[in-house]
Amino acid sequence: MRETPGTARRTSKTRIRLRKVEDGRVTSSRDVLATEEPLEIRVLSGGERRTVAVTMRTPGADFELAAGFLFAEGIVSSREDIEKMSYCLSSEVGAEQQYNIVNVTLRPGLTYDPSSLERHFYTTSACGVCGKASLEQLEMRGCRVLPPGPRVFREVICSLPGRLRSSQGLFEETGGLHAAALFDTDGNLLALREDVGRHNATDKLIGWALLEGRIPLSEGILMVSGRSSFEIMQKALAAGAPIVCAVSAPSSLAVDVAREFDMTLVGFLREGRFNVYSGFERILA
Amino acid sequence: MRETPGTARRTSKTRIRLRKVEDGRVTSSRDVLATEEPLEIRVLSGGERRTVAVTMRTPGADFELAAGFLFAEGIVSSREDIEKMSYCLSSEVGAEQQYNIVNVTLRPGLTYDPSSLERHFYTTSACGVCGKASLEQLEMRGCRVLPPGPRVFREVICSLPGRLRSSQGLFEETGGLHAAALFDTDGNLLALREDVGRHNATDKLIGWALLEGRIPLSEGILMVSGRSSFEIMQKALAAGAPIVCAVSAPSSLAVDVAREFDMTLVGFLREGRFNVYSGFERILA
Repeated sequence: MRETPGTARRTSKTRIRLRKVEDGRVTSSRDVLATEEPLEIRVLSGGERRTVAVTMRTPGADFELAAGFLFAEGIVSSREDIEKMSYCLSSEVGAEQQYNIVNVTLRPGLTYDPSSLERHFYTTSACGVCGKASLEQLEMRGCRVLPPGPRVFREVICSLPGRLRSSQGLFEETGGLHAAALFDTDGNLLALREDVGRHNATDKLIGWALLEGRIPLSEGILMVSGRSSFEIMQKALAAGAPIVCAVSAPSSLAVDVAREFDMTLVGFLREGRFNVYSGFERILA
Repeated sequence: MRETPGTARRTSKTRIRLRKVEDGRVTSSRDVLATEEPLEIRVLSGGERRTVAVTMRTPGADFELAAGFLFAEGIVSSREDIEKMSYCLSSEVGAEQQYNIVNVTLRPGLTYDPSSLERHFYTTSACGVCGKASLEQLEMRGCRVLPPGPRVFREVICSLPGRLRSSQGLFEETGGLHAAALFDTDGNLLALREDVGRHNATDKLIGWALLEGRIPLSEGILMVSGRSSFEIMQKALAAGAPIVCAVSAPSSLAVDVAREFDMTLVGFLREGRFNVYSGFERILA
């Protein structure tokens, strides 16, 4: 993972001792694990400071994670909405904690409703929840059907897992990380982010795009290392990414989101094969 | 997944049409996906009704999921704490939603602090968050060092992934589910639960144990299909499960929890080999 603004001094990997058991032989060994540490995201707005989330994450790209989280939650919609981001380096905060708190100052005049963050209610009324209501809620939050295009060649799609894997440095070392990556339609890797949490990896990637002024990602392909779920599709949709590829299976609701909002959803992308669950017209097979 | 109390009428799998792309050939096909639908958990206590969570889950074992969630949150600690669980079948609730809401009535006199649920703060003070504080918070929530024992043979541990996989029916069909299973120290499968969410699968399993009066799981081995994280270890610790095995890597904080509370943590358990990160004394290698 290259150094990015908001990459903590805390390290993204942790060295440990362990025992390996194989064929009845026990050996002492050393290995590298993906670090997991809490990150607290605080928002400063209108003179008030409020903790909006504490998430378990792999240190690194913390500012991008904070920006991506706030974007996914609808609190910010462009980089101009963020006036400043900084670690909480107050002397009142212990050294162990200083790089685990990110303060985000919103631009003057930008407010948000803290109660919308209290819990995630996938519901449109006080009375019920269902997949359909979850889709309606996306519309209520301003998500719209994505426009046609771009188109991408089958060969490009087949090349993505290899490109993802060869760039996933921390995974190679630890075997324990999720990745989210952005490719262009020629298959060039634009950015890759890793984290112990699937959603964090995607938030880091989309936060990067936000801070780079690249949203909407209308020409991009979002690739995730694992499965696709409602929440991954929600984040992709909010970022305007029309094509989502996953190494593993989608959930039923991931497919519903893709179909409702004219997104292309690819799954089981491995060994030169893939399934298309929605938006086949963007693929030049 | 066998039928259990609280298995919704809603199905745990969803049939869809898709296109398969392979070697330049495109074929129309049908496949089965793991269903993802929101579940709302409502708690009735002291005459008040409150939504405590909405989680995206795979329908099935919903009562166990609700019980396991409330146990992990510290709201209930035994099956006696739960007076009644039922779906919200009110005629005011649309048919699509009826099996997505579980009402849990606590026993008379049992109260809880709703503010503790608002957000998860892995912190012991208003001022900071870090891995150490996360461990201290587990202690504050009543978690204690687990007692010695039981001991388990290497061969038994090596047999678990195969036993897990052969029992994971929905995974075989959909390729898209996490599993959590409980084994005894002879390697016999006691229970297995699947879900699109890792935490949900574990909550379902521990909820099953709670409703069966089997907690603490002091003679059990908890096996998860993916990685081990802080949250998985927290759930295992709360349930008193001394041995946790995972097919993939642990995070750094998962190892910290295991070492702090004298748990045995096994990772990369596959093909007859495994790593032991903590609590090696429980393994007869």
